[in-house]
Amino acid sequence: MKHNFGAGPCILPQIVFEEAAAAVLDFNGLSILEVSHRHKDFVAVMDETIALVKKALNVPTGYSVAFMQGGATLGFTVAALNMMRDQKRAGYFNTGTWAAGAIKEAKKVGIDVSVLASSEDKKFNYIPKDYIIPNDLDYVHFTSNNTIYGTQYKQFPVTDLPLVCDMSSDIFSQVIDVSKFDLIYAGAQKNLGPAGATLYIVKDEQLGKSTSSFMPSYLDLKQQVEKESMLNTPPVFSIYVSLLNLRNLLANGGVAEMEKRNIAKANLLYQEIDRNPLFVGTVNKEDRSNMNVTFTLLDDSNSADFDALWKGAGIVGLPGHRSTGGYRASLYNALPIESVQVLVDVMKHFESQR
Amino acid sequence: MKHNFGAGPCILPQIVFEEAAAAVLDFNGLSILEVSHRHKDFVAVMDETIALVKKALNVPTGYSVAFMQGGATLGFTVAALNMMRDQKRAGYFNTGTWAAGAIKEAKKVGIDVSVLASSEDKKFNYIPKDYIIPNDLDYVHFTSNNTIYGTQYKQFPVTDLPLVCDMSSDIFSQVIDVSKFDLIYAGAQKNLGPAGATLYIVKDEQLGKSTSSFMPSYLDLKQQVEKESMLNTPPVFSIYVSLLNLRNLLANGGVAEMEKRNIAKANLLYQEIDRNPLFVGTVNKEDRSNMNVTFTLLDDSNSADFDALWKGAGIVGLPGHRSTGGYRASLYNALPIESVQVLVDVMKHFESQR
Repeated sequence: MKHNFGAGPCILPQIVFEEAAAAVLDFNGLSILEVSHRHKDFVAVMDETIALVKKALNVPTGYSVAFMQGGATLGFTVAALNMMRDQKRAGYFNTGTWAAGAIKEAKKVGIDVSVLASSEDKKFNYIPKDYIIPNDLDYVHFTSNNTIYGTQYKQFPVTDLPLVCDMSSDIFSQVIDVSKFDLIYAGAQKNLGPAGATLYIVKDEQLGKSTSSFMPSYLDLKQQVEKESMLNTPPVFSIYVSLLNLRNLLANGGVAEMEKRNIAKANLLYQEIDRNPLFVGTVNKEDRSNMNVTFTLLDDSNSADFDALWKGAGIVGLPGHRSTGGYRASLYNALPIESVQVLVDVMKHFESQR
Repeated sequence: MKHNFGAGPCILPQIVFEEAAAAVLDFNGLSILEVSHRHKDFVAVMDETIALVKKALNVPTGYSVAFMQGGATLGFTVAALNMMRDQKRAGYFNTGTWAAGAIKEAKKVGIDVSVLASSEDKKFNYIPKDYIIPNDLDYVHFTSNNTIYGTQYKQFPVTDLPLVCDMSSDIFSQVIDVSKFDLIYAGAQKNLGPAGATLYIVKDEQLGKSTSSFMPSYLDLKQQVEKESMLNTPPVFSIYVSLLNLRNLLANGGVAEMEKRNIAKANLLYQEIDRNPLFVGTVNKEDRSNMNVTFTLLDDSNSADFDALWKGAGIVGLPGHRSTGGYRASLYNALPIESVQVLVDVMKHFESQR
């Protein structure tokens, strides 16, 4: 039994793995890997997947859902290209790596980026809350959760301007009000499905309004929505496994239930980090992520002993991102609280040995 | 037993499906769907996949291989962006749908496209061979095989200019001389692997030479090559299944053996089309594709009877593309000659009933 705390691609429910494996061998008489994306059986898969995204997130009328490829990294470009308006200016919050990537790619397509606030002064260990949003912006962009630093917006920025969010690492982990957003995008490989699919939820009134002189068809959300995510061959298997996962999510109480469980898991681990004198949380308490819990040893010279303990307990994926070091426990929807308890027990055991 | 003549996503070897399903359940103790792309086990997968692409196609020194997402449709844009030089002009051959898409997307990124030759005058039923290539072009682009019309270049265009090819539907089906090309790109979902991965083979000296003012990081082949296809999370499962398929390909004689088998399969079917008075091939004989065999009934009012026969024999994926009608038998590497014989027998049986 492995306890997979990896940051992504990451754990999905075991039943989803089993159903996915079965479909690789037999999906209505063929392998899911050899079925045409134009076959009615796969068109039905795509339709149901989009319908279940809407159901799970209570997506209001007037919004469309599309699946593309390229991850959030291509999403940085897609967001900027599609939300560019007359000002060709946008406001970005810089909460570290992914937000910085979004800023870089927006500039590359000709957006004049105003950094509205940044937590770079403290190595991105908090969510900046002091900012003024000017009126002359085409849109405002933020990253709801930072997987590397372990920060998460507990309250989203409020603005009358179009609001755009890279929600890759916490979408489907909690209840959200989609009506506050004009565009949400997310790589699938956390709480949705395997790597290879990217989800877009876009307000219909924003489609086809770009002022960019450059708009490849693939990157045009209007075309992707009109073609019902079949502008070209979609990532069939990643979509299908996302469907399996969405069915499982909805059968288990949906995002409201996941939110409860994720908070319970995060509380369990943060309480131990705060209690145990050998560990230190790295993030400003009120901004701590419920998805990615980052912490370090007070005395790093103990790391070999601690590493041996958690590895011995069947835990994998606990090292922090290569850019930060330390530890990172990712608590995505599919990770059971029992796995968190195993980690907490290891931390207690480690303390008892000192 | 189904005989899958689908045009893509399409049949792969049964053993590949079995190995892929097994890895969804257990890949070194985790599901392949939950393993981090940064884990050494997956880095090894990516490295071996790239090495086997090079081995299978005898890719010479001075070329790099990269995997991206977005299919050939995003590849149209990637090719134009990365091959744009001082002239901002390029020559394109128009052999139908995919070539037309490549032309459209090249124009969208600012390439002045010269159509060097087109077979539009005869509904793309041949490969145009009369053309003059001017000198003032940045590159020359063609589509090696047209899945919809069933045409295939048996001899590639010869030019001293950089040569770019969308080889989506016949790469790995035959021996090619990569040294003649500066850029080859191909969606995986024919002879390589499942949908969701796109292969690029690029001459290193062409990297970083673009004159485009617009170059998102994701679309920049130089960055993709430098990051070893890990600029961001790659399509882990599609890459892994491609590796399984490449191992199988090389264990079965490689592309030279596939070429022999594919020619034998195509000959078997074309001979029946030409012999059987009830059927007509739709393509100029010398340009007939060995991958996608297109044909029609001489008398279309017989189609219900013919359709019932091949469906009864377990054949799937035989209808022609929705834009052309008729029939299309795709004979990709994994389709056994026994399946082609089943189709030929159905055609003979259909004749005997008239």
